Amino acid sequence: MDNKLASVRGYLTDLQDRICAALTEEDGEAVFDARVFEQRRGTARPRVLSDGAHIERAAVNYSHTGGAEMPAAATARHPNLHGASFKAASISLIVHPRNPYAPTTHANFRFFIAQPLEGEPVWWFGGGFDLTPYYLFEEDAVHWHQTAHDACEPFGVYSEFKKRCDEYFYLKHRREARGIGGLFFDDHTGEGFDDAFSLVRALGDSFLPAYRPILARRKDHPYGERERAFQLQRRGRYVEFNLLYDRGTRFGLELGGRPESILASLPPLVTWRYDETPEPGTPEARLSEQLQPRDWLANASGEAS
Amino acid sequence: MDNKLASVRGYLTDLQDRICAALTEEDGEAVFDARVFEQRRGTARPRVLSDGAHIERAAVNYSHTGGAEMPAAATARHPNLHGASFKAASISLIVHPRNPYAPTTHANFRFFIAQPLEGEPVWWFGGGFDLTPYYLFEEDAVHWHQTAHDACEPFGVYSEFKKRCDEYFYLKHRREARGIGGLFFDDHTGEGFDDAFSLVRALGDSFLPAYRPILARRKDHPYGERERAFQLQRRGRYVEFNLLYDRGTRFGLELGGRPESILASLPPLVTWRYDETPEPGTPEARLSEQLQPRDWLANASGEAS
Repeated sequence: MDNKLASVRGYLTDLQDRICAALTEEDGEAVFDARVFEQRRGTARPRVLSDGAHIERAAVNYSHTGGAEMPAAATARHPNLHGASFKAASISLIVHPRNPYAPTTHANFRFFIAQPLEGEPVWWFGGGFDLTPYYLFEEDAVHWHQTAHDACEPFGVYSEFKKRCDEYFYLKHRREARGIGGLFFDDHTGEGFDDAFSLVRALGDSFLPAYRPILARRKDHPYGERERAFQLQRRGRYVEFNLLYDRGTRFGLELGGRPESILASLPPLVTWRYDETPEPGTPEARLSEQLQPRDWLANASGEAS
Repeated sequence: MDNKLASVRGYLTDLQDRICAALTEEDGEAVFDARVFEQRRGTARPRVLSDGAHIERAAVNYSHTGGAEMPAAATARHPNLHGASFKAASISLIVHPRNPYAPTTHANFRFFIAQPLEGEPVWWFGGGFDLTPYYLFEEDAVHWHQTAHDACEPFGVYSEFKKRCDEYFYLKHRREARGIGGLFFDDHTGEGFDDAFSLVRALGDSFLPAYRPILARRKDHPYGERERAFQLQRRGRYVEFNLLYDRGTRFGLELGGRPESILASLPPLVTWRYDETPEPGTPEARLSEQLQPRDWLANASGEAS
């Protein structure tokens, strides 16, 4: 049990360092708040960047936790783990760029290992990443999914994880996807720990190659009040998803996690305007249609999804 | 069944008119958007005011609805109504003033009547009102609760409804009340329809006398960037409550209600700043303590709560 957990912790904390370093470099101005919080059940290493030149808010949070008894939220899906002790490690990140032409992104990787009252320990991985553009660039969407696809290819999981991502990041009350998706998986054991951990490392390592070039090429895109207003309005949908639907957010808060860390995922400035529909034919009006789930790699050269 | 419902509808739509007229007058500049929406299951008469001189957003929404079968959300509490047809009428309102010294308020009154497969129709009232100050004026809090108390007095329900309000409008993850409370009730039948409807009319009629004088005396209070920033930050807590906990919001969205009407309760402009704690000794720092449930009328002259 502890070898597996130690390996995952080592990987995730290193990934946190690498992602924070890259985002700091890409921003060029702001640095992460990197305090460490010892909590009742483990350690939280939230890292939050605010008011950067290009990144208005980024949160790259690592935590490990554990307990004498699995939370009800987890045993609902794993009834045989009722009464099991558990340990968990996870990284969860979000980037809200300042420029409305640069998309918001979210990624999460988590490892869970439980010791039932009798028998062998049970473990699994979960996670993924997804992208939420306010103005859609086809080439960004294709690059994002191509990178995700290529990281998944040796494991043959792209189609499944892509579909689950489209299903998960969906605002039922708006009948609209949160963004253009990416990858989502849970309860993943693959062909054993080595295989599953390899996959998680491949996906973790692919996050920066997937996101950073998009941020780099959009962060200086000229924009005005209109685009900024639309971005702030769309961020409202992001808040709606996180507070109404996101399991990680809701469970984290129910389990008594540090609210400032959990809610660091929320955008720094948000508007809700009543019943505002963009004018037909504008890029703002097109966004909703563009966010319907689709195969982004269908027309990409030599690639099947 | 229909006499009761017709009386309640008549009262609630009249109350909507009166409240909108008073808020329009108090704002002095903006008017309500008063379109009517025919929905699959009834009629929605949302009225929304945006960008007024003093009121940044107000939503005073009336709707009536009905169906051949009670929604699961309602039969969970009333299992004997499984399969019953139902009708409902409600008014739900919120006011987000522009001035940080003027508190946000929320009120709701609703009537439900169901016809089980066998036997007599079953009906009940629910509702209440509550106040969310950003800067607390003791005299406003006392006036608010005194008015609520006086409206309740003939029915002897102030203490109970006040306590339920404190319990309901509570952000567990923040360990903090949403505001200074007011009244909250549900499944109320009192001593029969006439008695219960009298109570609801007394409470409905007391909303403007409770809130309007507070808005009137705070709407021109001088303020600067610091107070505005604090208000926008505290509005984040309001969003957190409505999306994480509020049953009306969550059920409304789950039942497929018009999202723009339901989410018109959200403030127009909101910030989330990471881990920002007000300086000790400031009014902003004191707010959290001030929001703990307490007996606002304990020291008021000649009044017991």
